[in-house]
Amino acid sequence: MAAAFVPALADEGQWQPHQLPQLKAELKRIGITIPAERLADLSKHPMSAIVSLDGCSASFVSPEGLVVTNHHCAYGAIQRNSTAEKNYIANGFLAKTRAAELPGGPTTRVYVTDKLENVTARVNDGLEKLSGKARHEEAKKRIKALVAECESDKIYRCSVPAFHRGAEYYRIRQMMIKDVRLVYAPAESIGNYGGDIDNYEWPRHTGDYAFLRAYVGKDGRPADPSPDNVPYKSKDFLVVSAEGLKNGDPILLAGYPGRTSRYKLPAEIRFARDVNYPAMVADYQADLDAIAAATKGNDNHVVRYASVVKSINNRMKKTQGLLDGFARKDLAAIKDTQDAEFRAWYGKQANASRELLPQLDAAIGADMAQTTEDFFYGMATNSDLLKSARTLYRLALEKQKPDAERESGFQERDIANIKGRLSRLEQSLVPAVDQARYVSGLQRYAKASGKARSLDPLLPAVADVPAMYQQTKLADTATRLAWMDKAPAEFQQSDDPFIKLAVRMHDVAMALEDQRKEVDGTLEKIIPQYMGAVIGWKKSQGKPVYPDANSTLRVTYGTVSAYSPKDGVTKGPFTTVEGIVEKHTGKDPFDAPKALLEAVKAKRYGQFKDPVLGTVPVNFLSSADTTGGNSGSAIVNKRGELIGLNFDSTYESITKDWYFDREITRAIHLDARYMLWVMKEVDHADNLLQEMKIKYPKK
Amino acid sequence: MAAAFVPALADEGQWQPHQLPQLKAELKRIGITIPAERLADLSKHPMSAIVSLDGCSASFVSPEGLVVTNHHCAYGAIQRNSTAEKNYIANGFLAKTRAAELPGGPTTRVYVTDKLENVTARVNDGLEKLSGKARHEEAKKRIKALVAECESDKIYRCSVPAFHRGAEYYRIRQMMIKDVRLVYAPAESIGNYGGDIDNYEWPRHTGDYAFLRAYVGKDGRPADPSPDNVPYKSKDFLVVSAEGLKNGDPILLAGYPGRTSRYKLPAEIRFARDVNYPAMVADYQADLDAIAAATKGNDNHVVRYASVVKSINNRMKKTQGLLDGFARKDLAAIKDTQDAEFRAWYGKQANASRELLPQLDAAIGADMAQTTEDFFYGMATNSDLLKSARTLYRLALEKQKPDAERESGFQERDIANIKGRLSRLEQSLVPAVDQARYVSGLQRYAKASGKARSLDPLLPAVADVPAMYQQTKLADTATRLAWMDKAPAEFQQSDDPFIKLAVRMHDVAMALEDQRKEVDGTLEKIIPQYMGAVIGWKKSQGKPVYPDANSTLRVTYGTVSAYSPKDGVTKGPFTTVEGIVEKHTGKDPFDAPKALLEAVKAKRYGQFKDPVLGTVPVNFLSSADTTGGNSGSAIVNKRGELIGLNFDSTYESITKDWYFDREITRAIHLDARYMLWVMKEVDHADNLLQEMKIKYPKK
Repeated sequence: MAAAFVPALADEGQWQPHQLPQLKAELKRIGITIPAERLADLSKHPMSAIVSLDGCSASFVSPEGLVVTNHHCAYGAIQRNSTAEKNYIANGFLAKTRAAELPGGPTTRVYVTDKLENVTARVNDGLEKLSGKARHEEAKKRIKALVAECESDKIYRCSVPAFHRGAEYYRIRQMMIKDVRLVYAPAESIGNYGGDIDNYEWPRHTGDYAFLRAYVGKDGRPADPSPDNVPYKSKDFLVVSAEGLKNGDPILLAGYPGRTSRYKLPAEIRFARDVNYPAMVADYQADLDAIAAATKGNDNHVVRYASVVKSINNRMKKTQGLLDGFARKDLAAIKDTQDAEFRAWYGKQANASRELLPQLDAAIGADMAQTTEDFFYGMATNSDLLKSARTLYRLALEKQKPDAERESGFQERDIANIKGRLSRLEQSLVPAVDQARYVSGLQRYAKASGKARSLDPLLPAVADVPAMYQQTKLADTATRLAWMDKAPAEFQQSDDPFIKLAVRMHDVAMALEDQRKEVDGTLEKIIPQYMGAVIGWKKSQGKPVYPDANSTLRVTYGTVSAYSPKDGVTKGPFTTVEGIVEKHTGKDPFDAPKALLEAVKAKRYGQFKDPVLGTVPVNFLSSADTTGGNSGSAIVNKRGELIGLNFDSTYESITKDWYFDREITRAIHLDARYMLWVMKEVDHADNLLQEMKIKYPKK
Repeated sequence: MAAAFVPALADEGQWQPHQLPQLKAELKRIGITIPAERLADLSKHPMSAIVSLDGCSASFVSPEGLVVTNHHCAYGAIQRNSTAEKNYIANGFLAKTRAAELPGGPTTRVYVTDKLENVTARVNDGLEKLSGKARHEEAKKRIKALVAECESDKIYRCSVPAFHRGAEYYRIRQMMIKDVRLVYAPAESIGNYGGDIDNYEWPRHTGDYAFLRAYVGKDGRPADPSPDNVPYKSKDFLVVSAEGLKNGDPILLAGYPGRTSRYKLPAEIRFARDVNYPAMVADYQADLDAIAAATKGNDNHVVRYASVVKSINNRMKKTQGLLDGFARKDLAAIKDTQDAEFRAWYGKQANASRELLPQLDAAIGADMAQTTEDFFYGMATNSDLLKSARTLYRLALEKQKPDAERESGFQERDIANIKGRLSRLEQSLVPAVDQARYVSGLQRYAKASGKARSLDPLLPAVADVPAMYQQTKLADTATRLAWMDKAPAEFQQSDDPFIKLAVRMHDVAMALEDQRKEVDGTLEKIIPQYMGAVIGWKKSQGKPVYPDANSTLRVTYGTVSAYSPKDGVTKGPFTTVEGIVEKHTGKDPFDAPKALLEAVKAKRYGQFKDPVLGTVPVNFLSSADTTGGNSGSAIVNKRGELIGLNFDSTYESITKDWYFDREITRAIHLDARYMLWVMKEVDHADNLLQEMKIKYPKK
């Protein structure tokens, strides 16, 4: 409340590693001793130890390819190895030998970023003359070519993401390790203690960690899973520190944040706040209600939709959290002020374009209108069978083209992914439930106002839907997969009601996609100019500008710190093992293992006892700037030693995807001391404690 | 969590002022500079400025009889002066002149304690030979005589409460000022901001204060209300300090705490936890349900029962809070240890009685059994009309005896109170609702197990109750009051169904009362011996022993301090005016006045800004030992200046009535700076700011 001095740059920023030398003074001020230049070098420790898990972050913690990440990031690997008899979800899993390590399955992959090139010129040069869809398609074509060129060696997976909404493009080359095995995961009652109830909440007591191991061929190159493979010799790995942190200590966090929207205009905030997000929350809730009603009384169906429900709930909580944040603080007004300041500055620049800002406003307006259309399209097509049919027909059509010309997502490099998705659907599909969701969506769509009408004549009558589900064969996995190899004509002649609907909807869906490309092409032209001006404006104030998160490697820093969610209440920065006992009810998700409870009761804290707290810390808060995708991110101390893993952020922080409010934004981390303590006192993972290089506090 | 050094005496204790010199070192240690001897003297400042309001505490803050207390303690006075046109509850009230001050009504009285005598010998001497009911009655007779002797001058109200459950008796003489006027109360949206929702909660933002003025006859002696009366010249008054406090500062709190049960035995805790309290909570809830169902749809009836509902809710929340506290911490086990230590010590004493502890256990057992019987009696007689009839018939019978021999509560000195209660009933009685409560109680009683059966044949059949309500005339206030002057024979011949039932129940009710007296007489004989031994035991450890609260003047001390309600969360010690804005919804009970919101927005903090918080504090927490009756208690700083008013405690603290847990027990106080700030910035009570002696912080 006191107008304390807040340095302009503190904590905010998901920095590209090469930007860190610009932040030297700031890093030094909070106490980081690793040189900024070193942090900027992806080939050097510690950045060379940071990896991606495709949607999560992780890091090497031994020279033998041992990787630590979140329990929830390794969940798929744990789940696929679990059976009723060997329930590794419930009981945890520990491989005492290499031979006992279990296959992570086709979706568990480790990506090691090894090359980064600025390819902005190769994407953008000469595009000035184009606009709309034509520009978008040309840029996409160039990007596909850049990717193809890079992936000539099949051990690499490459991407060319846009930075600053298209002002810069980097080509990122990642070595894709496909043989990744499950090494150790604690019981779910540790790794997911608190479950959905505690999701986005503090106080938190989650031991959200698991260990995987990357395996490669004997030649050291990634290979398909095989018993002959050997552990990947990770060039660098992180030392794990049990020395811990205290309130106010600096941290660095490195990982792959997914997506932020920090440079949105005031109009976009108002659109999200007043139109789009409330509609999304209502739609999520209606979908959840439809699933709940359709699965009621059938435990099998409830289980089959559990992960779908969890995912919708998570998105809904996040969207609602943004709305709550918008209600708490008038971000639009804050952005109004910033926007006005920028426009005033820009107007005074010699090289200012008179058209830029009006064009920007128009492009944003078109984008918002298109977002609404896309939203209604999603509402009217909320059926997994219909979506599968759409994907299959699209694939058949795309396959008619040379690979390089196909829509991205339908190239040869994507076939395995498509197959995986269509195959995995069987784990979360019950036709009767899918029907209920589809009918509910159609009914909502029928009642909705403000939508374009092109889709309407194509949609089935609600009364006809039950017959569609009776007649379709798409619910059968083999049938579904068989369609992957069929020609467009076969689709056009099919009697399957969902294939027929997909064919019937195709033109309208493509028109919608073209509209989106038109909008995106315009944005890709305008926004980079606008962001260039914004960067110039910030530069005039001596401030570097970080790009929005785009699932590429970023570094953020901050300090261990508490926050005040409301007047008179302080949360954090630490929780302790005693808090686990406090929350323990004996019922999921608060059912801590007996061995853990006994160790706490006996105060067997060992070397993991914090000198200030007098006990073992479990989770802690920091002011680091994170978002989804940062799950599993390594948190290192000032010397670059691993002292924790990121896994969540507080509910009040959700707004940070739009606006970083340093007063209330806090990321939630696992304290490495808790992980090590569980490994030692509860799970007896001595082999791993031996394998890792652990720095214990001096006695 | 760290095993910090906790001094044995810190914070716990509701001390009799004369005990304070024993705590000299402790007072000095926390930083109190007023000499303990001075605090022990009721005739000297600051204790001479502390007064009782009959159920609340208060203090003089000017030489002209100006009294400050809680808003909720002055609520009756505000309510009786409010009309639809002049809604002082909603809008607040401020008398700008003495002439504008409003009558507080017959229930608003100020009691100035002016004499305290140890009369233990006069109550107990020679009672050793008696036991049970005979002992109880003889003690009561002596107490009545002591009271009568003291009240020979009618300006005094005297009492002889038991300390340490009868080990000591003090006769307390209080001057009763009957002409007390309402001077100033803020709007309810300040004085009761947060309402029932925030009751027992933190963070808290309640401006729970109001001002009254004591008036006396021109001769300086208390007199009946009259325009001729003059302000009471308060011998001493408290200086109000706007210098405030900070985290860790010492405070003293003086007032009239109602009742605690700190010396209960483990068996009594188990009885409350496992039997009595769960039954009480269920019964409160059932009664609330009956009221809700019977008043539903009729706003008038809802309003008429609002205060009844509020009171039941408050008792239920408190009882449930105790149960929650029992669940959180095994107090019975803690008491087991203490009890075992005491018994071991006692067994080694030369003068130990072999019978004492077995007799104690037996007496406690009888007390618990009797408590259960009393509980069922209450369940079966849950009708205001029946209770009125019982009171009236009892009064008629008691009036047959000489005044000194009557049951206390039915003496001449009590007649006005009885009349007031029977008269005020009209504000909270709707016969149809009373009938529903009575029927519901009878039905619960019929289903209950474990009760004595003597009452059963006397109770009406549920089917006959509607007719009773149709025929009775007792719902009419004049009729009810007229019965106060009737003879027992008139009752015995009456046709009124409730009078008839009261007559019919009399013998059984008296038998129950006699049983209770028998039990109490035994307790009064055993407990003082036991407490004497406990005091000896504590003395052997160098610890003074404070008696349980009994509505007499007590002093407690502590420090301004936060607490941790659960691992990872800290509450307090301060809230600020910004928190009012944060909670403001525009709807009761979070509907702050516009003038207040504007002053906060404009940061018009004036001289009331806290240097650490940078804004005006509203409420704060301290570790002082309080209970019900401490509402309105003066909180003074180390120099004896008023810096706040006590008004509540946190939910986690409710268990303190049984066990003071210094880790979590916190009282909630109004910060005097908030009161002064509202008076200046919102209500412009400049006349009172002038009248009080206010110490402002040095610039």
